[in-house]
Amino acid sequence: MTQTEDTSPATPEPATSDHTHGYISDKARYLARLKRIEGQARGIHRMIDEDTYCIDILTQISALTSALENVALALLDDHLKHCVVDAARAGGPEAQAKIDEASAAIARLVKS
Amino acid sequence: MTQTEDTSPATPEPATSDHTHGYISDKARYLARLKRIEGQARGIHRMIDEDTYCIDILTQISALTSALENVALALLDDHLKHCVVDAARAGGPEAQAKIDEASAAIARLVKS
Amino acid sequence: MTQTEDTSPATPEPATSDHTHGYISDKARYLARLKRIEGQARGIHRMIDEDTYCIDILTQISALTSALENVALALLDDHLKHCVVDAARAGGPEAQAKIDEASAAIARLVKS
Amino acid sequence: MTQTEDTSPATPEPATSDHTHGYISDKARYLARLKRIEGQARGIHRMIDEDTYCIDILTQISALTSALENVALALLDDHLKHCVVDAARAGGPEAQAKIDEASAAIARLVKS
Repeated sequence: MTQTEDTSPATPEPATSDHTHGYISDKARYLARLKRIEGQARGIHRMIDEDTYCIDILTQISALTSALENVALALLDDHLKHCVVDAARAGGPEAQAKIDEASAAIARLVKS
Repeated sequence: MTQTEDTSPATPEPATSDHTHGYISDKARYLARLKRIEGQARGIHRMIDEDTYCIDILTQISALTSALENVALALLDDHLKHCVVDAARAGGPEAQAKIDEASAAIARLVKS
Repeated sequence: MTQTEDTSPATPEPATSDHTHGYISDKARYLARLKRIEGQARGIHRMIDEDTYCIDILTQISALTSALENVALALLDDHLKHCVVDAARAGGPEAQAKIDEASAAIARLVKS
Repeated sequence: MTQTEDTSPATPEPATSDHTHGYISDKARYLARLKRIEGQARGIHRMIDEDTYCIDILTQISALTSALENVALALLDDHLKHCVVDAARAGGPEAQAKIDEASAAIARLVKS
């Protein structure tokens, strides 16, 4: 829904930064997913504004929550594959800290 | 975040419809919450665009998921208090159907 | 797993109580589901005891969590169909209280 | 609850295996947690058998689900700190496979 409002240009990125994070290769795809999620939120706003039946709104909220979870899981996978693997290879307390940080993020996802 | 973009007028509503759903009394508040959620989604888009650290993005996604869950739980509570109670009083197969529908929506929320 | 340990007699029930709750008609089935869940917990205990690979344990924990959620959703559906519908028909503050209570239980399920 | 039934000896373990998984150091603690979880499942069985009020049963199910999630998150943290870090250091396709496997387990947890 609300596709028509998502026509803003896909933010041409220079890609010259050298502090690349794990997800950078898929950046355009992540940005497109977030645009879609923003459109879903706008669609739910409109449903409430138009007095849509509650259950139908709940269905859209569940769909949006799932979409967000999938983005989070993809980001986390990229993070493990890049930042965490690099830290593990470097070793030392930094590796432990990276895993603690990832575990805390996983706990927030599981509990949210 | 992204507060500045959320200044669009709060969608003046005619309020002349007579098929009011359960949440209608709080409509302005629901609309404001959805505006904020849309802003949160836009903020996450920007974080990805600006190569923010993955873990910080995950934190914002968890916050957004929680905000959505809270809206869903509030809508569901309103729905039970109005549509379901009314159907229960009217009785008949309609009442059963309303509860089946609500249970299915609850299951989607629990599993999403 | 652990089926062999679940052969304890299915707790013969007198069924003479007259303070029947919503789920009473399916009581034998709920008891059987809980027996199975207890067996799943015992199976996970044994997996840890036998140094089973972590990921396989996590898979069993996810399965157990899903089984619990399904029991909770079934109980909640029964509760809505009986206690809440009865309270809605009786009306008054009791009806509101029953819905508040159900909504709080739903929130705990969604957030757990 | 049901503490009295949990008195079975804590399974004396030889600890001579050399295929130790990540969680092995905390094995006694994990076993104790699973014993407690098994007792919680037995307690819920008894509540149903004794016609306890549905909402109180739901509260116990939410508590049990949270206990399981916490065990899963602890196992996952141990797994990342040992198996995944070791694989990352060894490098090669094995490292990728370990992360894919961990990500799939995380997805199951988030969605269950």
